[in-house]
Order: sequence, then structure tokens, then C-alpha cells
Amino acid sequence: MTVRVGIINVTGFAGMEAARLLWNHPEAELVAATGRSLAGQQLGEAFPHLAAYADFPITSELEAEVDVVFSALPTGASAEACAPLVEQGVRVIDIAADFRLREPAAFAQWFGKDHPAPALLDRAVYGLAELHAGEIANADLVANPGCYPATTILALAPAVAAGLIEPRVFVDAKSGISGAGRGTGGGFSYSDVNEDVSAYRIANHNHQPEMAQELSRLREGPEVAVTFVPHLVPMTRGIHSTCYAPLAEDVSQSEVLALYRDFYADAPFTSVTDAPPHTKHTYGSNDCLVHPTVDERNGALVAVGVLDNLMKGAAGSAIENMNLMFGLPQAAGLDRPALYP
Amino acid sequence: MTVRVGIINVTGFAGMEAARLLWNHPEAELVAATGRSLAGQQLGEAFPHLAAYADFPITSELEAEVDVVFSALPTGASAEACAPLVEQGVRVIDIAADFRLREPAAFAQWFGKDHPAPALLDRAVYGLAELHAGEIANADLVANPGCYPATTILALAPAVAAGLIEPRVFVDAKSGISGAGRGTGGGFSYSDVNEDVSAYRIANHNHQPEMAQELSRLREGPEVAVTFVPHLVPMTRGIHSTCYAPLAEDVSQSEVLALYRDFYADAPFTSVTDAPPHTKHTYGSNDCLVHPTVDERNGALVAVGVLDNLMKGAAGSAIENMNLMFGLPQAAGLDRPALYP
Amino acid sequence: MTVRVGIINVTGFAGMEAARLLWNHPEAELVAATGRSLAGQQLGEAFPHLAAYADFPITSELEAEVDVVFSALPTGASAEACAPLVEQGVRVIDIAADFRLREPAAFAQWFGKDHPAPALLDRAVYGLAELHAGEIANADLVANPGCYPATTILALAPAVAAGLIEPRVFVDAKSGISGAGRGTGGGFSYSDVNEDVSAYRIANHNHQPEMAQELSRLREGPEVAVTFVPHLVPMTRGIHSTCYAPLAEDVSQSEVLALYRDFYADAPFTSVTDAPPHTKHTYGSNDCLVHPTVDERNGALVAVGVLDNLMKGAAGSAIENMNLMFGLPQAAGLDRPALYP
Amino acid sequence: MTVRVGIINVTGFAGMEAARLLWNHPEAELVAATGRSLAGQQLGEAFPHLAAYADFPITSELEAEVDVVFSALPTGASAEACAPLVEQGVRVIDIAADFRLREPAAFAQWFGKDHPAPALLDRAVYGLAELHAGEIANADLVANPGCYPATTILALAPAVAAGLIEPRVFVDAKSGISGAGRGTGGGFSYSDVNEDVSAYRIANHNHQPEMAQELSRLREGPEVAVTFVPHLVPMTRGIHSTCYAPLAEDVSQSEVLALYRDFYADAPFTSVTDAPPHTKHTYGSNDCLVHPTVDERNGALVAVGVLDNLMKGAAGSAIENMNLMFGLPQAAGLDRPALYP
Repeated sequence: MTVRVGIINVTGFAGMEAARLLWNHPEAELVAATGRSLAGQQLGEAFPHLAAYADFPITSELEAEVDVVFSALPTGASAEACAPLVEQGVRVIDIAADFRLREPAAFAQWFGKDHPAPALLDRAVYGLAELHAGEIANADLVANPGCYPATTILALAPAVAAGLIEPRVFVDAKSGISGAGRGTGGGFSYSDVNEDVSAYRIANHNHQPEMAQELSRLREGPEVAVTFVPHLVPMTRGIHSTCYAPLAEDVSQSEVLALYRDFYADAPFTSVTDAPPHTKHTYGSNDCLVHPTVDERNGALVAVGVLDNLMKGAAGSAIENMNLMFGLPQAAGLDRPALYP
Repeated sequence: MTVRVGIINVTGFAGMEAARLLWNHPEAELVAATGRSLAGQQLGEAFPHLAAYADFPITSELEAEVDVVFSALPTGASAEACAPLVEQGVRVIDIAADFRLREPAAFAQWFGKDHPAPALLDRAVYGLAELHAGEIANADLVANPGCYPATTILALAPAVAAGLIEPRVFVDAKSGISGAGRGTGGGFSYSDVNEDVSAYRIANHNHQPEMAQELSRLREGPEVAVTFVPHLVPMTRGIHSTCYAPLAEDVSQSEVLALYRDFYADAPFTSVTDAPPHTKHTYGSNDCLVHPTVDERNGALVAVGVLDNLMKGAAGSAIENMNLMFGLPQAAGLDRPALYP
Repeated sequence: MTVRVGIINVTGFAGMEAARLLWNHPEAELVAATGRSLAGQQLGEAFPHLAAYADFPITSELEAEVDVVFSALPTGASAEACAPLVEQGVRVIDIAADFRLREPAAFAQWFGKDHPAPALLDRAVYGLAELHAGEIANADLVANPGCYPATTILALAPAVAAGLIEPRVFVDAKSGISGAGRGTGGGFSYSDVNEDVSAYRIANHNHQPEMAQELSRLREGPEVAVTFVPHLVPMTRGIHSTCYAPLAEDVSQSEVLALYRDFYADAPFTSVTDAPPHTKHTYGSNDCLVHPTVDERNGALVAVGVLDNLMKGAAGSAIENMNLMFGLPQAAGLDRPALYP
Repeated sequence: MTVRVGIINVTGFAGMEAARLLWNHPEAELVAATGRSLAGQQLGEAFPHLAAYADFPITSELEAEVDVVFSALPTGASAEACAPLVEQGVRVIDIAADFRLREPAAFAQWFGKDHPAPALLDRAVYGLAELHAGEIANADLVANPGCYPATTILALAPAVAAGLIEPRVFVDAKSGISGAGRGTGGGFSYSDVNEDVSAYRIANHNHQPEMAQELSRLREGPEVAVTFVPHLVPMTRGIHSTCYAPLAEDVSQSEVLALYRDFYADAPFTSVTDAPPHTKHTYGSNDCLVHPTVDERNGALVAVGVLDNLMKGAAGSAIENMNLMFGLPQAAGLDRPALYP
């Protein structure tokens, strides 16, 4: 039995990446895809790299029966579109931010509007398979993690869960430009962005509460305080998150490596590297590479995580969650080496 | 009277950038330039962008009388070459790391060899004009700051000097590839570096002790502890340093901005921006742009500094130091807008 | 006496580049700059790399007395704005395409509208200093060459003028993205343009008739037929024009090099290189580098030209024309090595 | 039955790309891989993006029984390594240039040495599936096309075969830097190559005779004369070949499009686009996109071809040839959309 998948808003980068992955999925198939601005065009005509979908229309509403929907709408609009689907018994994986924060008040504070479907928040499962595979398997509504939080949480989770660090982290993340989305305005033009690094929304980005909430769930005691600064760097794909925290106890480099390796021993996509990892080693793959370093001089931990923001940071992770929800092998359709160079 | 300048090792990126700047300097002139591997060629032939130096030979030794020498040799070799010049009364600006650390033991620890001229360390002045203009004006030996330390110290100096932050900083720096030098091997090939971000020498880079030493001089009390992680990003020029520290007192965003603006009120090249600065706004200029942000949620300061690593981070700063040493206007030959886009 | 310059539409890339160059011009000064969308802002505030112009307002109309105006408006609008200025005796350098084609019918054909000021076409001088320095010096209206034509004409002029090639050329040009202008839409976003090469307006770009017209003026006989294909490559600045033509006579590589060198012997900015030139060797400079190759196997000439599209291809060339028009040294304000790397 | 594949020189870009593709091939498996400099390491350790090959040693000689070998050695060395394998009955796909030119004298002229195995030249089949699928299926030695020739021949073949153009073409090709190979020296460092376009080996590249030979086979009459100029552009993967030729007869744009579409009607990987294609639309895929334009003004054809130089231009094409040789579906292991953005 093939899982029938619908994508809401296939015309954004995450949506089109999900379509790309589904083309080669052995047990799932794209059967419907919406996208208001391009409705009426064929998917393979609108996006030449998806030429394989030559006879697959983009529609304004989902026009086939589906088992699961990926929503890649903007935050706010996504919950509105997902709510009736959940009620109808369609499983939903929300790639937007609508179901990540558990408190409606937090949503209102960070996104500047009331949550459109607060009643669903309790049913939503945070879709990071390394931490919540069991819950995801039983979920009907999954909140796909944000790209920055996915990278950061995977870099820090073993240390937080083991109580290795103080609950005070500084997160410095560098993202490729595709994180800003498709069809974005002049600020992301090649001429402006090439040969440029800049920080934005310093200590004020809406992925910060998601990191704080999810890291805090991993340990007893006070909330984990997170200072988060995202940066744009001149590349298309990739996130590099460098996380700093005071050590809570004396620990050696080899002990930390062992603890991290143990934590991810069964994870098919997250692995611990001996040397600092490169974002390019995950280009187009669903891998997350993690590397902790003990700064003995200063009693601190530096934990690095890297991934492809459109794969493990968005569409790849959504496929992984779908696999878990439908009892398929976790790596189905995702077992691909990265593209290098 | 024109200042006669010699460059030792004009064939590296810093050396050739100094030659470029001297072509347009109103009161200084390049009169000799060494470079073993290319000795015998004309400077304008070896480096087509310096075609203006069509009849200017690269020699193996300095072959003209000079008032000042820029040394752009590798660390260790530089002190050996500079020592006899200082003895002869030639003023020296060392762009290498040889005279930055004040303790011979620190040099030995971080560079893995004994200092070749420890007797000169006391005469060396740290060449960051924003902090030590008076000393530089009277120096005969100037240690030009490292590119990472220059960016970081300028980002943090006002806060450290005012006691605004705890003596515990995390420094996350992103550098363009030219920081790795010219003619470097396969690891910096376009195919490997494009679409890639990676950290290296995590908490173990030899610019760390330079930052710690110079920041600590700005305040009474314990040494400033620095955890420093450099990263390579796919661009040619530019450094972006993001510095994190716990606040030592309650302070507002506007108070911090005012304090920073006051600190740099007389600095011709360092200015404080209202919004997060872009490395690209300093491309080819001698400017450093600084921007502090108070993270009220977590009681922390995030201070950003950006500059062009070959200009304010190397050759531009060397010209600025020369100007001060010879009583020229500080901005002579450097008053140029950045190249954009 | 300082030449007082006004820039119409300083907010495009060519206009802001002219402002940058004027900051360091020894005998000219920017006194007024218009830009409707940003009128009211200071120039140094709107464009951080021009921070030196901190107290220089962008206005909606020219608000100071000027000796010369650079118009960087879109084609069509530019002639409308320039015509009254020419009537008032202000000298005008038009960076748009309005006064390049000598026939109003050609303008109508290629730009889809009637020429707004056909009476001025006879007064306009084509502003390529290598070919028309004398006329430019006496002009009150100069048509600044297009970036593709400037590169191509300089690459081919010696061969065409000497009758070395048949009047049949294929021009394959590669341009950096800044040629598409500032604030352009989604098609030039970093994510779309990085890792991409594409041709556009194949054999149908409006720079083609400009090339054909100007090359044909260099020789007796039939019009030079030009097949022109522009390409976008992932870089910010630079044009590389590769021109192919059948040889009209037997000639050796050294003869062609000698002929080219002789042709440009007195040109301050165009030079002939021994090896294929790199666009990067002209980054930020006003230089054009030219290199002809005889394909003996097939009896063809391959002529390469490279330059910085915003400098010799736009604003640098405009400054050069101004210098000639006002009797200043041709290289005033432009004698700068390129930025490398 | 799974085809057992050996790769000679897995450590170059083409070799490692073949290994990447074989990981997901449904009916072939990598069983041995050589690479002298890294012999002894595991493939997944030497190349982190191939981490899936964690327990797969790189050896100095092929150490398993194989059905087919991909040779990615340098030209000259490759024929030496392939000759004994062919004698032993192992099928060989040579990714080097050793078996492409049919005349030993041409090899000697262009590669500067005698051919190491001239007796095998008659057995070698030129491995461009669009033109020679039948021969490839029966071959025991396949000469995989060069990246530039593959792009160019596919762009021109329909026009040449139909006698649409004169036998005189100008080929202007733009290649990403990976075409220069892995571990190449300073000339391809990021700092030198970013923001740069340059031509090299103008009308003197050893892919020229390959183009001329293969295009000439497509028609009666005189040899096709080819002037070929390769360029490097700042991207990692991709080739864009723009081909110019005088039309031999009057033909309309729609007629040419129809002729091209007809020619490639059965080709699984080459298709004809309505608009100029982008290299990025083939990133990581085995597709070649072709687009012809009639320049009516000048009676010329402009034919564009784009592909990924490591895929359809090297390893992807090698897999395709293997599929044909072993009776597998032509697209096995290759039916993947490109990665975008």
C-alpha cells in the first residue's frame, strides 16, 4: 500500500523539496499539490528541475484523497488550513511554526497574532525523530521542527539530557539564503548577499522560544536560557549552529564524545564526527552531523551541529516523520549520500 | 617629504594589499618589495591587478633605503627579519603575529617555538589605533593586530572598559577565505569551500590569547576569559565577529549604544551602527562597523564587529599605523568608501 | 575650479558607483543627487558603504547648480530628463541607452517606444574614450556606452579597424549579476542565481544594434553583422566578452598582438595582455583588458575583453568622459589598482 | 543478478561521484575501489559525504572480482590500466580521454605522448547514449565522453545530422570549477576563482578534436570545423555550452524546435526546452537540457546545451553506459530530479 501524500503550498522551497523527495520514495506518492499563485500550471513546468512531474497540475485546493498532508504555508495560515484536515482524520505534518510552541500565549507573543487553532496544540507532537520517535509514530499532527532549532537541539541534546552543562546557552547559527524562502525581495538578491555575512533579529528571532522549550524538556530543573543569533552567509543550503555553554562538571573530550556517540547510537541520520563537520557534507542529504568540543581552558562546551536546512531542516525531516507515522522504514526515500563537491 | 616604504613578502595577500594602497597614498611610496618565490619578476607582472607597478622588481632582499618596513612574513620568520631592521633604526610594522603576545612563554606555547627576538617584545606597541594611538605615534616597532582580534576587540572594548560585562566572553567569528592566505592548498579550493561553512581550531586558535591579553588590559580585575571559535564562510574578504557575554549590570539598549558611540566618537574608521552591520559594507575599505545589542531576556550583551580582513584587519591598519608613526593624517591614503555591491 | 556634478537617480548601482568615485575625485564634487524612492534620506544613510556622505540629502529634483549631470535613469525616462538640461547649457552624460543608437527608428524598434528627444541625437557623442576622445572633449551630450558594447567594441576594434576580420562576428558575453540592476525581483535572488549559468535574450538583446553600429563605423564596406548572446554568471561585478570572427587574411599571433598593442598604445585604461585576462583583475578599477588569439587551425580570430561593468562599463567610464569634457587629466579620480583577491 | 563494479581512482571527483550513485543503484554494487594516495583508508572516512561506505576500504589494486570497471585515472595512465582488464574480459568504461580519439596520431598530437594501447582503439565505442545506444550495448570498452564534448555534441547533433548548419561552428563553453578536478593547486582557490570569469586554452583545448570527430560522423561531407573556447566561472558544478553556426538553409524557430524534439523523442535524459535552460536545473541530475535559437537577422543558429559535468558529463553518463552494456533499464539508479535551489 502506497501512502498518498498531499502538499499544501508546493511552490515554496520546502514544498518543492518534498515533491522532489517523493518522486523517489518507494512507498509514498505525491497525489495532490496546491499553490495559489501557480495554480493551473503543471508542477514540472513551473519548476524545471521537477520536469519529471510533467503532467501533475498545481491546484488551488487539494483535489485527491490523501492519507497525509505536508503543509508548507506561512505561519498562521498553516494552522487554519490544517485544522479541518485533522478533524477529517487526515494526518498532518506542519512544516510551518504553528504547532511548535505549546502555549498559545507564546505563539501570540512571538508571532503577533492569536493562535488559529489552540485546541489542537495538545495533540501536536514535536517532530524530531531522534528524541520523540515513539510519539511521532502515534501522532496525527506533527509539528516539524524549525531549521535552526533542529540543528541546535541535535547539537545540544546529549549534553543537556546528561546535565553536562549549565542551563545557559549561547547559540550562534549561520544559514544559507534558501532559509529566507523563495521569491523573496531585493534584500536577498545575489548582488547584495554575495560576499556578505550579517546577523539579523539579534536575540529576537522566533526560533528562540522553540529551542528553549524543547531543550528544557530534556532535563529537570530551571528552563534553559537561550541567547540566539542567526546569521546569513553566502550559500544556498546549509545551517551551521555553534552552541556555547558553561560546563556543569569536569569532563574530558573523550568522555563527551562517548556520551554523544551513545546518545545517537540508534539514530539513522544524526552522527557524531571526530573533526568539526562541514555543512557541505550534508548537501542534499538528510544527515545531521554533530561535534562537541570541551574548552578545558575555560570550562565550557562548544557543540556544533550542521545540516541541510531544506532536508533535515524541513522536507527531509517531514518525510522521516511520515515514515514513522505510517510504519515505514525510517530512512525510506532518504537513504542518499550528500552531493559533493 | 615622502615616507619610503619597504614590504617584506609582498607576494602574500597582506603584502600585495599594502602595495595596492601605497599606489594611491599621497605621502608615502613603495620603494622596495621582497618575495623569494617571485624574485626577479616585476610586481605588475606577477600580479595583474597591480599592473601599475609595471617596472617595479620584486627582489629577494630589500634593495633601497627605507623609512619603514611592513613585514608580512609567516610568524617566526617575521621576527627574525625584523630584529636587525629595528636595530638599524628602521621603523617596523609587523603584520605577522610575532610581537603581539607580550610574554615569550605565551608565544612558545601557542606557536610551538621559542621567540626569535624576545628582547624586542617590550618595545613593541599593539597597533590598534582606536586604543593606542599615542603609543603608536612614538613606537619604532608596532605589532599589527590579528584580523580576528581586531574585529573582536573593537566590538567589545567599550563594554569591557566600562565594566559593563562579566570577564567571560564567547567569540564566534566568521571569516572569508582570503584569511587563509595565498597559494594555500586543496582544502581551500573553490569546489571544497563554496556552499560550505565549517568551524576550525575550536577553542584552540592562536588568536585567542591575543584577544584575552588585550581585552584584559582594558579593565582592572581578573583576566577576561575568552572562548574563541573561528569559522570559514564562502566569501573572499570580510570578518564578522559575534561576541556574547553576561551583563554585569542592568543597562538598556539606548544606554549601551550611547556608551559605544561616545567611546568611538573620535575614531576615524570605527563607527557604531543602528542596525546589524554587513561585512559587505566594508569591502575594500578601512572601516570597522560595530553594533551592540542587549539581550534583556537573558541579561546578556551581543556585540558584533565587521571589517575587511585584508584592510582594517591587515594592510589598511598597517598604513594607518604608519600614518600615526610619521605624523601624517591618520586617514591618509585610506579615505575611501567601500566597494558595493 | 572644481567641477560640480549632479547625479540623476543615484539609487541605482551605476548612480551610487558614480557617487563613490566622486568622493575621491581631486577636481570634481558631487553637489546634488536625485532618487525618487529614497528622497529625503541622506545618501550615507540609504547606502551604508557611502557613509562618508552622512549629510548629503537625496532629493527628488536636482537642487544645486551643476556643471554636468550623470543620468542613470531607465532608458526613455533618461532622455526626457536630459533634454531640458542640455537646452539650459548643462553638459550631460547619459548612462542610459537613450542616445546611443543614432537612428530614431532603431530606438523605436529595440526599445518599443518613440524616442523622446530625437532632435538631440545628432549632438550626442558616443562616449568610448579609446575611439572618440576628441569628440567627447567637445561634446555637450555624451552617450555613455552600454556595458556589453564597451567590452565587445574594445575587444574587436583593432581587428575591425584594420580589416583583419570578416564583417561577421559572434559575441558571447558573460556578465555578473549587478548588470541586472538594484532591487530587481526574485529571478536574481541568491538562491536562484548561485551555481547557475544561463543565457537570455539570445540574439535579441538591445545592446546588439549598438555593437553593430559602432563596429561598422570603424571600417568601410558592409555593416558588421553581430550575433550577440548575453549570459548571467554567479558573480557580482564583471563582464567577459568572447568574440569570434573569420579572419579576412593570413596573420600570425604575434602580428595580431602587435597590431592590438599599437592601437591601444596611448589608452590609459585599455591594455593588451599576453595571457587570457580575468574579470577579477579589473574588480573595482576602470581597466579594460583585451586579448586576441589567432585560431590558425580554422582561420578565425578569438578576441576577449574584460572589465568591471559598474566601472569602465558604466560609472568609471562616465567619470572618464567628464574628465575629457572639462579638460581634466583623463585618469583623474580613476587611477586605482583593482581590488584583489 | 547484481552487476559488480570496480572503480579505479575513486579519489577524484568523477570516481567519488560514481561511488555516490552506485550506493543507490538497484541492480549494481560497488565491490572494489582503488586510490593510491588514500589506500588503506575507508571510503566513508576519506570522504565524509560517503559516510555510508564506512566499512569499504580504498585499496591500491582492485581486490574483488568485478564485472565492469570505471577508470577515472588521468589520461594515459588510464589506457595502461584498462588494457589488461579488457584482455581479461572485464568490461571497461573509461572516464579519461584515452579511447575517445580514433586515430593514435591525434592522441599523440593532443596529449603529447604515444597512445599506450592503440590496438584497442578500434574496439572502443563512443559512449554517448543519445547517439550510439546500440553499439554501447554490445561494447566491451566504452570511451565515456568528455564533459565539454558531451554538452556540445548534444546541443548540435540534431542540426548537424539534418544538414541545417554549415560545417563551421564556434563553441563557447562555461564550466564550473569541479571540472578542474580535486586537489588541484592554487589557481583554483576560492579567493582566486570567486568573482572571476576567464577563458583558458583558447582554441587549443584537447576536447576540440573530440567534438570535431564526433560531429563529423553525423553527416556526409567535409569535417566540421570547430573553434572551441572553454571558460571557468565561479560555481562548482555545471557546464553551459553556447554554439554558433551559420545556417545552411532557411528555417524557422518552430521548425528547428520540432526537429530537435523529434531527434530526442526517445532520449530519457536529454530534452529540448522552450526557454534558455539553466545549469542549475541539472544540478546533481543526469539531465542534459538543449535549446536552439534561430538568429533570423544574421542567418545563424545558436544552440545551447547544459548539464552537470560530474553527472551527465562524467559519472552519470558512465552509469548510463553500464546500464546499456548489462541490459538494465537505461535510467536505473539515475532517475532523480535535480537539486534546487
